[in-house]
Amino acid sequence: MPPRRYAFGRADEATHPDSMRATLAEFLSTLIFVFAGEGSILALEKMHMDTRTTPARLVMVALAHALSLFSAVAVSFNVSGGHVNPAVTFGALLGGRISFIRAVYYWVAQLLGAIVACLLLLVTAGMRPAGFTVASGVGELRGLVLEIVLTYGLVYTVYATAIDPKRGSLGTIAPLAIGLIVGANILVGGPFDGAAMNPARAFGPALVGWRWNNHWIYWVGPLLGGGLAGVIYEYMIIPAEPPHHTHQPLAPEDY
Amino acid sequence: MPPRRYAFGRADEATHPDSMRATLAEFLSTLIFVFAGEGSILALEKMHMDTRTTPARLVMVALAHALSLFSAVAVSFNVSGGHVNPAVTFGALLGGRISFIRAVYYWVAQLLGAIVACLLLLVTAGMRPAGFTVASGVGELRGLVLEIVLTYGLVYTVYATAIDPKRGSLGTIAPLAIGLIVGANILVGGPFDGAAMNPARAFGPALVGWRWNNHWIYWVGPLLGGGLAGVIYEYMIIPAEPPHHTHQPLAPEDY
Amino acid sequence: MPPRRYAFGRADEATHPDSMRATLAEFLSTLIFVFAGEGSILALEKMHMDTRTTPARLVMVALAHALSLFSAVAVSFNVSGGHVNPAVTFGALLGGRISFIRAVYYWVAQLLGAIVACLLLLVTAGMRPAGFTVASGVGELRGLVLEIVLTYGLVYTVYATAIDPKRGSLGTIAPLAIGLIVGANILVGGPFDGAAMNPARAFGPALVGWRWNNHWIYWVGPLLGGGLAGVIYEYMIIPAEPPHHTHQPLAPEDY
Amino acid sequence: MPPRRYAFGRADEATHPDSMRATLAEFLSTLIFVFAGEGSILALEKMHMDTRTTPARLVMVALAHALSLFSAVAVSFNVSGGHVNPAVTFGALLGGRISFIRAVYYWVAQLLGAIVACLLLLVTAGMRPAGFTVASGVGELRGLVLEIVLTYGLVYTVYATAIDPKRGSLGTIAPLAIGLIVGANILVGGPFDGAAMNPARAFGPALVGWRWNNHWIYWVGPLLGGGLAGVIYEYMIIPAEPPHHTHQPLAPEDY
Repeated sequence: MPPRRYAFGRADEATHPDSMRATLAEFLSTLIFVFAGEGSILALEKMHMDTRTTPARLVMVALAHALSLFSAVAVSFNVSGGHVNPAVTFGALLGGRISFIRAVYYWVAQLLGAIVACLLLLVTAGMRPAGFTVASGVGELRGLVLEIVLTYGLVYTVYATAIDPKRGSLGTIAPLAIGLIVGANILVGGPFDGAAMNPARAFGPALVGWRWNNHWIYWVGPLLGGGLAGVIYEYMIIPAEPPHHTHQPLAPEDY
Repeated sequence: MPPRRYAFGRADEATHPDSMRATLAEFLSTLIFVFAGEGSILALEKMHMDTRTTPARLVMVALAHALSLFSAVAVSFNVSGGHVNPAVTFGALLGGRISFIRAVYYWVAQLLGAIVACLLLLVTAGMRPAGFTVASGVGELRGLVLEIVLTYGLVYTVYATAIDPKRGSLGTIAPLAIGLIVGANILVGGPFDGAAMNPARAFGPALVGWRWNNHWIYWVGPLLGGGLAGVIYEYMIIPAEPPHHTHQPLAPEDY
Repeated sequence: MPPRRYAFGRADEATHPDSMRATLAEFLSTLIFVFAGEGSILALEKMHMDTRTTPARLVMVALAHALSLFSAVAVSFNVSGGHVNPAVTFGALLGGRISFIRAVYYWVAQLLGAIVACLLLLVTAGMRPAGFTVASGVGELRGLVLEIVLTYGLVYTVYATAIDPKRGSLGTIAPLAIGLIVGANILVGGPFDGAAMNPARAFGPALVGWRWNNHWIYWVGPLLGGGLAGVIYEYMIIPAEPPHHTHQPLAPEDY
Repeated sequence: MPPRRYAFGRADEATHPDSMRATLAEFLSTLIFVFAGEGSILALEKMHMDTRTTPARLVMVALAHALSLFSAVAVSFNVSGGHVNPAVTFGALLGGRISFIRAVYYWVAQLLGAIVACLLLLVTAGMRPAGFTVASGVGELRGLVLEIVLTYGLVYTVYATAIDPKRGSLGTIAPLAIGLIVGANILVGGPFDGAAMNPARAFGPALVGWRWNNHWIYWVGPLLGGGLAGVIYEYMIIPAEPPHHTHQPLAPEDY
């Protein structure tokens, strides 16, 4: 098993300037992502009065999430690891890739970033955030399972491309893969439960717009899916010894 | 001719932990891809009652496939080579880049991943998978040729960017090129035969949704197109000697 | 604090061939970007008589901006740093990453590129450029804050992926992240104020089309947002010492 | 001035296995690109009877071209340089980056690839290719200038990201930048003249569909625009001495 990089003492972690910078980076990245993601929903409302989902609207919302998450992950990638999502942080915590104290810092920063993004939308768009809810005829249980499956795909992607120490040149395109799997998953889950895959993304609009319908599934689902992905990837996929059978030789920067 | 990396003994191959990890990675990646791809079709049904294809719907479905395949290939790239498609595995087998026993492992994993994805869609969306069929006025023969041509483009892309030992820095963007050529090809073939280019992608919904119309062309077409691409690239494009006339010098990581 | 690369004498800067090449590169890149961005608006007009914003039209305009900006940044990346935007240049100036004399050269080149692009559109499309204006019911103050927030996200992305000396392999995807965050932000801000995030992008059509409504907010907003991003990233995110706690080890090309 | 890599004798060039492989690669890549590009037009016809351009249709066609060109360039990048376009080859020829004899080989291969692609579309879609024509109210002269400007942007992108010996890590994303600038430019030029930017792309459907209206502008425009880009980039942008003022340090693989 590879050494855990984050298993250092809490005292050092809590006060070190790097922790502060990483926490600030998570705050700013989540702000950029939630502003674009939730903002695209409000842009839809600005264009149309009705709120029916159509393919063109779904593509628009999925692209707004995908492209902004790509940038949000990229800009914090070298500073904080580019989590931008409490479920990602939870997966990294269960996989032993981040200390508990740093995870708490990230969670607070992510939630604050989402809240500030929604307050800025309230000011600029002059609209109450829409947030997430389960579509009629779907039900909370199905929505919960959907959030688990969709978030599993997202956090598995994060783990394979951004955390795996043997990722090699995959790390270069990790932010893009992370952003675009969210786009793909919104094209699937959007009409059913909105496809949050991110408790901060759901919490900001819920708080600022004060809409709490089905809210718990956007916490339980992503944390279960993200935690499962972290555990499966960490303990079943990351090899204990150097691989020697794939046709992808390890790049020189692997270690 | 370059040495074949996969030509080791079957006994070692079948029981080695790397083979198990690679097989698991193919299972999980195909699950993620088919869940998003087939799920986007069900999302269309959820939004609309009719099933007519329009440009906006086609863009939505093409993006769901392209973006999720990009991630699915990326996350298994270093572990299994990122096949996620029995036709890709078949092309790599004919080109001598993978052993027969490993190909069988991959095929089983890919089919199982597609089946589990469709079962999860049955649970979460509560809908019978739609699968693939030839559009009225097209006919099976035309659909077959279309699958051959489209899959040729896909597997040729896989070979050039992910398998060719002289691919150099192209390997960094291989998962993206593989995902996006599938998106482009769906924008062409979608209205004619659905553009599966992947027997597992077609088999999962066929089995779970029990729809077998024209099903054989989604096996024969992709395997012919993928096999053809593997043979042409392996024996006609990969140079037997170091190239010395292109304006793309080999990167240091080439070998 | 890292040494400032641009803090050399003005005399050398003004006459050096590299300055001329960089200025020419900014001119040509801004021309390519504004031709595609503003051109997509005119293409909309060519297809439809009415000018109502719909999701499909917004996606079309956002993609035209995102994809062309990606290329425009990429082609000038190694020559001028790929600013293509006076607000980016302003952020780099406040962060101490570019000299004042070079910033002036870039600003002139960017504005000229935007003007020539709009003149070429006048010739080829035979249409008066549309430019930017605040949507009814939004107001200049909200539009101003929106431009500040959206440009903050853009210039923060530029700083993190293209300017930060510790960016490592992020530099490879910097032009893509820069182009796509503009696409995401247009999907949010488009229906409210057009989402210029770039004074040159707004100035070219305003001059050639002679439309000056609300024009000042497309200067003040982007410069405030871009300057803020430059200062925050330069002085709060770039570490004063080598990082040692992230799970993204620095690539060998870092310095 | 950098040494010209292609200035070797014609006898060697014409019979060397590398030339044959490169020519085959250009043929196959152009086939893949034109099949997807022209095929997306036929897919539109299959879905709708009318041929009016709408934003959703334009996005669909632009994405089909952009994503397939990305793959087509990527798969031939290391073998032939990934031209896939006679105008690119012409620009590289004027810039001295390819020998005349090799340019002739490429041109023949590109035209043949486009023709075979259209014949395959005739067989699989059962439809007469649509090709390019100038929209009503535009006129040939405006179409010609538009092709010049749009192709200039494309070939300038090719030169900066794929040919410039100082491109460094930009080479990794060159195929993506090349594909996506074509997508952006189609979103501009599509409703006016179709935005071919590629004589082979225009010639294949013209020959197989026997439609020659305005055909000359799709040869003259791209060749003028591509040639201009090659000359400007080669002689005005590529530095004669190592740069020392940008904030983009050269990567180790530069030479």
